[in-house]
Amino acid sequence: MFFHHRDLAYTVRVDKPNPVFARMLQQAIGGPEGELRVMTQYMFQGFGYRGPKKYRDLLLSTATEEMGHVEVLATAVAMNLEGAKSEMVDEVITNPAVAARMGALEPRHFLTGGLAALPSDANGVPFSAGYVDTGGNLIANMRANVAAEAIGRTLAARLLEMTDDPGMQDMLRFLIARDTMHQQQWLAVLEELGPEMATNAPGDLENAPDQQDNAYAYFNHLMDSPAPVDARWTSGPSFDGKGTFSVKEPAPPLGQEPDLQPAPPEVHAGVDATGNVARSAMGRFVRGVTDKVTPSS
Amino acid sequence: MFFHHRDLAYTVRVDKPNPVFARMLQQAIGGPEGELRVMTQYMFQGFGYRGPKKYRDLLLSTATEEMGHVEVLATAVAMNLEGAKSEMVDEVITNPAVAARMGALEPRHFLTGGLAALPSDANGVPFSAGYVDTGGNLIANMRANVAAEAIGRTLAARLLEMTDDPGMQDMLRFLIARDTMHQQQWLAVLEELGPEMATNAPGDLENAPDQQDNAYAYFNHLMDSPAPVDARWTSGPSFDGKGTFSVKEPAPPLGQEPDLQPAPPEVHAGVDATGNVARSAMGRFVRGVTDKVTPSS
Amino acid sequence: MFFHHRDLAYTVRVDKPNPVFARMLQQAIGGPEGELRVMTQYMFQGFGYRGPKKYRDLLLSTATEEMGHVEVLATAVAMNLEGAKSEMVDEVITNPAVAARMGALEPRHFLTGGLAALPSDANGVPFSAGYVDTGGNLIANMRANVAAEAIGRTLAARLLEMTDDPGMQDMLRFLIARDTMHQQQWLAVLEELGPEMATNAPGDLENAPDQQDNAYAYFNHLMDSPAPVDARWTSGPSFDGKGTFSVKEPAPPLGQEPDLQPAPPEVHAGVDATGNVARSAMGRFVRGVTDKVTPSS
Amino acid sequence: MFFHHRDLAYTVRVDKPNPVFARMLQQAIGGPEGELRVMTQYMFQGFGYRGPKKYRDLLLSTATEEMGHVEVLATAVAMNLEGAKSEMVDEVITNPAVAARMGALEPRHFLTGGLAALPSDANGVPFSAGYVDTGGNLIANMRANVAAEAIGRTLAARLLEMTDDPGMQDMLRFLIARDTMHQQQWLAVLEELGPEMATNAPGDLENAPDQQDNAYAYFNHLMDSPAPVDARWTSGPSFDGKGTFSVKEPAPPLGQEPDLQPAPPEVHAGVDATGNVARSAMGRFVRGVTDKVTPSS
Amino acid sequence: MFFHHRDLAYTVRVDKPNPVFARMLQQAIGGPEGELRVMTQYMFQGFGYRGPKKYRDLLLSTATEEMGHVEVLATAVAMNLEGAKSEMVDEVITNPAVAARMGALEPRHFLTGGLAALPSDANGVPFSAGYVDTGGNLIANMRANVAAEAIGRTLAARLLEMTDDPGMQDMLRFLIARDTMHQQQWLAVLEELGPEMATNAPGDLENAPDQQDNAYAYFNHLMDSPAPVDARWTSGPSFDGKGTFSVKEPAPPLGQEPDLQPAPPEVHAGVDATGNVARSAMGRFVRGVTDKVTPSS
Amino acid sequence: MFFHHRDLAYTVRVDKPNPVFARMLQQAIGGPEGELRVMTQYMFQGFGYRGPKKYRDLLLSTATEEMGHVEVLATAVAMNLEGAKSEMVDEVITNPAVAARMGALEPRHFLTGGLAALPSDANGVPFSAGYVDTGGNLIANMRANVAAEAIGRTLAARLLEMTDDPGMQDMLRFLIARDTMHQQQWLAVLEELGPEMATNAPGDLENAPDQQDNAYAYFNHLMDSPAPVDARWTSGPSFDGKGTFSVKEPAPPLGQEPDLQPAPPEVHAGVDATGNVARSAMGRFVRGVTDKVTPSS
Repeated sequence: MFFHHRDLAYTVRVDKPNPVFARMLQQAIGGPEGELRVMTQYMFQGFGYRGPKKYRDLLLSTATEEMGHVEVLATAVAMNLEGAKSEMVDEVITNPAVAARMGALEPRHFLTGGLAALPSDANGVPFSAGYVDTGGNLIANMRANVAAEAIGRTLAARLLEMTDDPGMQDMLRFLIARDTMHQQQWLAVLEELGPEMATNAPGDLENAPDQQDNAYAYFNHLMDSPAPVDARWTSGPSFDGKGTFSVKEPAPPLGQEPDLQPAPPEVHAGVDATGNVARSAMGRFVRGVTDKVTPSS
Repeated sequence: MFFHHRDLAYTVRVDKPNPVFARMLQQAIGGPEGELRVMTQYMFQGFGYRGPKKYRDLLLSTATEEMGHVEVLATAVAMNLEGAKSEMVDEVITNPAVAARMGALEPRHFLTGGLAALPSDANGVPFSAGYVDTGGNLIANMRANVAAEAIGRTLAARLLEMTDDPGMQDMLRFLIARDTMHQQQWLAVLEELGPEMATNAPGDLENAPDQQDNAYAYFNHLMDSPAPVDARWTSGPSFDGKGTFSVKEPAPPLGQEPDLQPAPPEVHAGVDATGNVARSAMGRFVRGVTDKVTPSS
Repeated sequence: MFFHHRDLAYTVRVDKPNPVFARMLQQAIGGPEGELRVMTQYMFQGFGYRGPKKYRDLLLSTATEEMGHVEVLATAVAMNLEGAKSEMVDEVITNPAVAARMGALEPRHFLTGGLAALPSDANGVPFSAGYVDTGGNLIANMRANVAAEAIGRTLAARLLEMTDDPGMQDMLRFLIARDTMHQQQWLAVLEELGPEMATNAPGDLENAPDQQDNAYAYFNHLMDSPAPVDARWTSGPSFDGKGTFSVKEPAPPLGQEPDLQPAPPEVHAGVDATGNVARSAMGRFVRGVTDKVTPSS
Repeated sequence: MFFHHRDLAYTVRVDKPNPVFARMLQQAIGGPEGELRVMTQYMFQGFGYRGPKKYRDLLLSTATEEMGHVEVLATAVAMNLEGAKSEMVDEVITNPAVAARMGALEPRHFLTGGLAALPSDANGVPFSAGYVDTGGNLIANMRANVAAEAIGRTLAARLLEMTDDPGMQDMLRFLIARDTMHQQQWLAVLEELGPEMATNAPGDLENAPDQQDNAYAYFNHLMDSPAPVDARWTSGPSFDGKGTFSVKEPAPPLGQEPDLQPAPPEVHAGVDATGNVARSAMGRFVRGVTDKVTPSS
Repeated sequence: MFFHHRDLAYTVRVDKPNPVFARMLQQAIGGPEGELRVMTQYMFQGFGYRGPKKYRDLLLSTATEEMGHVEVLATAVAMNLEGAKSEMVDEVITNPAVAARMGALEPRHFLTGGLAALPSDANGVPFSAGYVDTGGNLIANMRANVAAEAIGRTLAARLLEMTDDPGMQDMLRFLIARDTMHQQQWLAVLEELGPEMATNAPGDLENAPDQQDNAYAYFNHLMDSPAPVDARWTSGPSFDGKGTFSVKEPAPPLGQEPDLQPAPPEVHAGVDATGNVARSAMGRFVRGVTDKVTPSS
Repeated sequence: MFFHHRDLAYTVRVDKPNPVFARMLQQAIGGPEGELRVMTQYMFQGFGYRGPKKYRDLLLSTATEEMGHVEVLATAVAMNLEGAKSEMVDEVITNPAVAARMGALEPRHFLTGGLAALPSDANGVPFSAGYVDTGGNLIANMRANVAAEAIGRTLAARLLEMTDDPGMQDMLRFLIARDTMHQQQWLAVLEELGPEMATNAPGDLENAPDQQDNAYAYFNHLMDSPAPVDARWTSGPSFDGKGTFSVKEPAPPLGQEPDLQPAPPEVHAGVDATGNVARSAMGRFVRGVTDKVTPSS
């Protein structure tokens, strides 16, 4: 279970309230790059983890930290929407070039939130748990988590470029530091698991012997650009130590031309696509109870 | 631009059409782990890439390969929905325990597709581009791509466990082999970029000096489980070579207790939350044209 | 079935067409606070209601009224997108500070609608029936309906603050009046059902005797802020007349530490999380038909 | 900020693992009636609240409690997906009538989660923050929160009807008890605010004098069913003490027949809908830089 | 505005309640092929139409009819979920092969609706207004409407194949008849507009002279299949009377190889993609207020 | 399978980079009117088509062409986000009236894409495969495809009105030309199928004899506007040659007043809606294993 502490995970200080920047911060709350995503991702990876307790703890501790980051950012949004403490706010809002470039205000900050953060992104698109990556496998999950933090730190870097507010800069530098550690810690788990396993998730599945060629060959699908001869992925040993990179150029069509059966009449696929064929496996349930055909239909 | 070749990227052979398995295959087409996601992810990463041509080529060649995988899987779905070629289909469909366990049919395969694949997942949830991860940064993108392939190979491994059809097993083993190469090739790019950059995206942003401590410390948010002393992420050098792991236990509250200003009257936040305060920066646009207040509202 | 009458439910008059305000009005059409939501919510609650006809009538009559409100608002959007009837439009559009603050135009009003309203919110997010709350229970439904109208009236109050157009103000005051009545009428149903039932949906389910303590106790999860002694929810009788409020501080952990079983091999959860355990209930369907394991996978 | 405690908020005991019931429990995790919704709803309402600290505390304490309920339910899902501890699992899974009725398994529990809960509903639809209701107003928020708990308790009641597992019944009875208290506590806040304010959100907005009639009248939109004479909402005092209920039958069309202007040519609305009219306010930005028309377009 | 009539638009009679069929009917309510889609599509097309009143009337009359179809189908769902009137229900529910094939029950019919229809599809995916097609142009709208009815009638035809219930068959045959008329009536509008306009929306936009070749040529993108010589789209006059069909084989690459500029440093695109270039148009707003660069970032 | 060619399908030249226009172009990439929609729509219609090869080829060739259009537009977005090649960019960005009118920048072009296109629309809403229309029937599919191209050409016409950039105008005129051909080619398929079939999808389903009246009658649901006597849809032969148009005025209520059964107790529908009735067909699975009722629930 969880507990809440009165103090924020990091100081939120807004020297020049800037509602345009409040909109930008929403991307770090509810976007695919945001804290609600990693919070939910680590929660569910942790809740369902069946291996050593130390990995479960790591996932849940970090999920709990991310909850606090959501709080930090939501507080920052609310404070950027607050009454101006100085004339500097005019500089932001009444400088229409700045406002116009930055995409202006998120109207729902006023209409819906009443000057509060919302669980959505910089364009007002609601957070979706469809953003969450999980593979039910520690290696796949660690890969997803490194990626989420790498993307998150990139977003924070760009947010840092968008503000001159010293308080906001300080907060973002803290979040950037934490995104550093989080990238490092998920990589640390991968190192513990070893490259043989960790560079080819899931580590407990070997490629079939007759697919060994396809498992380490670069298939070039470009009609015009030959694969580079000196790239790391066209020659040399693979990272899992189980193969050697090669190139297939052009990418070979290893399959047949598709030739689907016509549809049975009950599908109403049209006369052009209907054959005098046996009912499909699926078609069998059609009229399944009595199996009779009604003339008028 | 793109061209299409008549032959499939790999042979699709269905020995025992199984519409329940057709539903399962949909997850590999339109789920967050699926081919439409990686196809779209690599397309957009490639279309917008501004660096060396070889990375752009790698992204677009692989995007093009994934288009062919969507075709392979959609063909496999259609063939699994086809008329039974043998009595073996009865084994699947009339064994209600199997069907019930596997979640039964996707009704839209009949109702909407007329015995065809759909751009959705095993539960009929439509594919969303919200699944796509992109960071506008080669390192972040490579991390996202390794993750997507790691999750994709894990999904394919589980699909392989669900079928005894030799044709379907062969197709899945091919896709598993390709997911192997794709994990390897994205890791190869990261190796080319070097660990200093690649383990801490974006590589061109240094942590602020006063955040160095926070950038390599594990913050333990668990009230009861001390951080492990021997884990890779609690001591030793960081992967970017710029820090040494440490532990902060318990995680420190580095911020203040939030104290938001009351809302101005035009927000209608309720008497409990309204103060006699200056209009907020946002409130200024309220009645912005004339700035007069109408009594009756 | 339904019929349409030529006249609008209320006069729509736009003195100063303002396409920025057209964008704001979209929130009242297609947002979670909007008319499409209540229209759909009352329709489906009414279509499925199995009790006294007067409640069904109330739901469907109000649903029908809301259809007319969608029409009123869509007409208002279209008129705000129309050619200027006076020079006053310049004041709005060529005053970039106003436009920038209000978030500027919804590009799809031109690109998609050709100067018409769309079934989406102020940010162009399409209406989703996921916004609809329904509990299949008159009390739960009435609670959801009071909430929807309370939120809707708050939105309309804020829209009223954003316009000086007398016609738009008049229309919004009408909608605010109707949101008043709708809040009142749903509360009237709750009064008819009586507090014993209506304050604890579903009213036909008693709490288990051994959970009586948990049913009326405030669990304080804050590590630092003691529960207030004088709040209505920390002492005194409960509203359903069946308990007395108390406080549990701190909130008690009433459960165990989770200890999940390792996963069976067919899950490919990774060697760290895989045990030599019996197949899971779910795992049984894996390879269900033949139950044999293929070596190469 | 937040902390995590090793023990669950309530004991999770699964006597007969039942993966079909695991699917049902997902509705209480990621559906519009579920714990992710109330957790997110209370978090964001609390993070943005600008009034007395005791209400903020109440919101954040309860949000924190709901995080623990997500954990409880996710653990229950994982345990229902586990290997059978007894032969009783056969009863569930090999009784196809039960499985078929209950909608069978959620395939993503295996394919994606690897025997773990997911942030989605019983049909695998991902959680969306669009489910979250917030009004930026304490009264509107309390109404939304009573509604969410009323719907949540109704869902839990139905889940209780679907299981004979004593452990699952005990867990659900605990959650039902907590949904009781949560309904009561949000009602307690409304009582503190008083009926004049709380029955008509937002309480700080009076209806316009000329809309008084519309604010307390039931408009009957049914062509055939007269409004009931004895219903609470057709006569008697309103709950806010500011009006008396009346009936308008039939509902009056208070507006005009809409008469939209033709569209200007740049809209390409078709010759049927295009007039020789001044450019619309929106049309002005078309060709805004040079304002010239190109012949060939 | 709208009114409601007590009687349904068509008789709903359910001889054998079948909750599996109730799930199937949901596709016709809330799917992309369903009545909520056409209802919303025609409402918004009508509300925003700026041409002759007879087309607006046609759109709104049909929108109103579709509201009644939603009611008919929602009633049919509720009745299919009702208590068995005979032993025949056993035939459906206790025949697990049928249930399993048909995808079994929609659990939310019980969990959420309490035996009522929901605004979602056969897989429980909520209706989205993203399904709505509108072009803000009568021709484009009529094309979208013919398409929606063609798809809707196809869905109804397949639903008819899935039931032996005489009442359900009768209801579906009525809906099929109405989908016939609706296809015909939208085609009638297109005939009134004339082929020159109606076969090439928007009719008021001529192709540029130098694009005439591209406007009537079939570009063959298949590497292996030559375009058919005798197809209607490879030779002969075009339908708008303005061109003659031709073939370009293979499809010509008419553009250049893309060559994007490197990104400016503030984008943090990575050293591989960053150049010593002028700030981008977008980059200008970065640090826009002061334009100074902070060393530590 | 697919291959990629280095050259773009059409020249992309941007004379005056305009990041506001970049946002507008996104609608043509990821909106319901965009290229990702038609690309996905034609891919899946083609992959599942079971009739003559020439129609499958037509679908897949055009799907492949649309992939190239996505690339063209994504390149155009990236180039519009690039550094200014002249002072003309100032004209766009520093003219706040233009920027404000056009809705200003898409913040995610910088925050997420790092100056690249995204798979979303002009408001940043991610592409959803729910936009895809498919009927599993050649006629229905062709109708959907004509509609998609008619809407797409209308969108392109409006985009053309929004830019003075000669390069962008040229690119849009090319896309408009291709949307012309695509409308024509799908109509060509419909002509080949013949009006009897093609004007009433699915062509292989006749209306029931007793529904003949309803199949060709216009039902007028307007209470005030009589159906026009001279419209093409109120008299004369139908387009499928199987009926004669007529009018039913007012639209007849052909059904009964709904009268749903009360709910069984296990539904917890509330005492108002619960009867002493047999368990519903659905209710049977409640407590299905043991069928016993627990007193305390």
